Amino acid sequence: MNIEAVKWIGGTDGVLELIDQRRLPAEFVRLKIRSVEQLHEAIRTLTVRGAPAIGVAAAYGPILALQWLTGRPSAAEALNEVLKACDYLASSRPTAVNLFWALDRIRAKAREAAEDPQTTARGLQAALLTEANTIHEEDVVMCRRIGENGTRLIRDGFSVLTHCNAGALATAGQGTALSVLFEAHQRGRQFEVFADETRPLLQGSRLTAWELQQAGIKVTVICDNMAGFLMKQGKIQAVITGADRIAVNGDAANKIGTYSLSILAKHHGIPFYIAAPSSTFDLSLESGAAIPIEQRNPEEVIWCAQVQTAPSGVHVYNPAFDVTEAKDITAIITEKGVIESPNRERIRDLLGRAEPSQPDSLRGPAAKR
Amino acid sequence: MNIEAVKWIGGTDGVLELIDQRRLPAEFVRLKIRSVEQLHEAIRTLTVRGAPAIGVAAAYGPILALQWLTGRPSAAEALNEVLKACDYLASSRPTAVNLFWALDRIRAKAREAAEDPQTTARGLQAALLTEANTIHEEDVVMCRRIGENGTRLIRDGFSVLTHCNAGALATAGQGTALSVLFEAHQRGRQFEVFADETRPLLQGSRLTAWELQQAGIKVTVICDNMAGFLMKQGKIQAVITGADRIAVNGDAANKIGTYSLSILAKHHGIPFYIAAPSSTFDLSLESGAAIPIEQRNPEEVIWCAQVQTAPSGVHVYNPAFDVTEAKDITAIITEKGVIESPNRERIRDLLGRAEPSQPDSLRGPAAKR
Repeated sequence: MNIEAVKWIGGTDGVLELIDQRRLPAEFVRLKIRSVEQLHEAIRTLTVRGAPAIGVAAAYGPILALQWLTGRPSAAEALNEVLKACDYLASSRPTAVNLFWALDRIRAKAREAAEDPQTTARGLQAALLTEANTIHEEDVVMCRRIGENGTRLIRDGFSVLTHCNAGALATAGQGTALSVLFEAHQRGRQFEVFADETRPLLQGSRLTAWELQQAGIKVTVICDNMAGFLMKQGKIQAVITGADRIAVNGDAANKIGTYSLSILAKHHGIPFYIAAPSSTFDLSLESGAAIPIEQRNPEEVIWCAQVQTAPSGVHVYNPAFDVTEAKDITAIITEKGVIESPNRERIRDLLGRAEPSQPDSLRGPAAKR
Repeated sequence: MNIEAVKWIGGTDGVLELIDQRRLPAEFVRLKIRSVEQLHEAIRTLTVRGAPAIGVAAAYGPILALQWLTGRPSAAEALNEVLKACDYLASSRPTAVNLFWALDRIRAKAREAAEDPQTTARGLQAALLTEANTIHEEDVVMCRRIGENGTRLIRDGFSVLTHCNAGALATAGQGTALSVLFEAHQRGRQFEVFADETRPLLQGSRLTAWELQQAGIKVTVICDNMAGFLMKQGKIQAVITGADRIAVNGDAANKIGTYSLSILAKHHGIPFYIAAPSSTFDLSLESGAAIPIEQRNPEEVIWCAQVQTAPSGVHVYNPAFDVTEAKDITAIITEKGVIESPNRERIRDLLGRAEPSQPDSLRGPAAKR
């Protein structure tokens, strides 16, 4: 399976291709993104979504911005344009830290290139494309590693519950939580998956069910409110989700509904796993209480596919994420290894770990923002 | 507010009027039901829903059946037709016990009338209309009593979470769980309500939010998966739902998702109440494990308002109900009183209680099926 949710076509004058995830599963459409404004809109409206995919897509944004500079800009002018584009893209969504992490890398690379008096605007753009491509390639490797590291947790006969979409569509590679399932499946492990539909935007029923179906893994869609009843009946042996930001103590922000699943899993004695790259950790945050939670448009809840499903004028509470406490997480699966019973020490220990076979840039990419 | 979800118009040659609950909140339409087949379809497709409303609507069904008898039928022929209609209507939905309870009362009344050699088919029909009207009136009284009995549980400053719709639309009166809120509101209690949208059929966002809005009670719609996160933030002080069948030990079947709420409420130290008439108790069932759980059409989950929200051919698990354990229920609010920490003894004690101010027929209406 090669979904390629985020794909750069061409050189510095190239174009960013995104799968329009709002139209799946009914239609599989690739959109061409040619400006920072288009990219901002694509991230904001969830055309591209999933913390790692947002990060990779955003990394290409400043290259698009430079394509619109006219005349013969200096490297300083180009740097200025890049920093503006990065600030703008950072305002597209507030919770996923991978977005800020990727933009920080692009900013740093642009500054580094601009410091060299030999660098032209064109040279700076080329340096950024190399950096964005590196971020992209690292993401592909990271996804596979997460899958390899997590696969031992999925045993024969398991039914695994997942929430939202942490698959290929959420990354530049084969996903995070779903990567674990794809790797287990490739090793011949016999298991099935229950996919929470994940209201309000149905990423589970629309995207996760589609991806697992493509991969030939048995998947059953349920409404979010059915998960507890399945657990009670002994039908779930593990829960695995992605994450959008993880604090230094292990508290993890992920799609709204994840917190409830962690409490229900604990109540029923079911292990609860989070799969996420090390770039998801935000070492500047002491706990999940400091993670900003995006509030989205009430219309997402009031309307379902152009049909009104709640009365006009009704109040709506529509947080996109919630925070799962470290004490309710059995383990966090990263590309560097698995952190069982995550806490501050174990997280710092793993994040500081060098991996000889990894590219340099994968070492310690903890976000600073 | 006088919603009248179930309304008989006219005498024995009358017609049953139901609000088409599938079309709310966009449209408020009353349907005229003129045959048992139409009524069966209306119950099956949730045109009329809610355990008490289903019971009251079904009670009128045999009268419609008799309107279609041609020639000059004997009382025995009429009785036969009534029993056939009752058996047929009992197959419309499997979980709500009020349906069987109401049909049992109609069967008993028809047999009683037919025993009298003076009774004509016409007389039998008149006796059934009186019985159905009595069931209807009792439901109105029952709703108000539940509200009165539960109102002390709703305090100033509370935010109350409810699931599905246990309001006027679910009964012939002013509801069960929502009746408690309506009564508290009428007494000037200051509180607000969070309404779970209740996938897949959105009875919470479509019906409960609409009813509360009509009554001038502040209501905020949330997706089902947001409830736990609200509880964690201290934003919920009580949970109240209806029930479709309660076993003798207090285990209660209600709309899918109720079980998860009971576990989440317990985890957060929030009281969890069920409001239901005594006709919801099924004394033939030792525990919730014996309650049959209706599995509904996968299409309800795969499609949302004519738009496909899950891939074709995907497996779907779509139970309509789940069972909440008595140990996770703080109290059951009935028209006869409130059963705190429900168990076998307290339930038998309350159900056996005579209420001097109640019509005879409200005493001990525990279902036999």
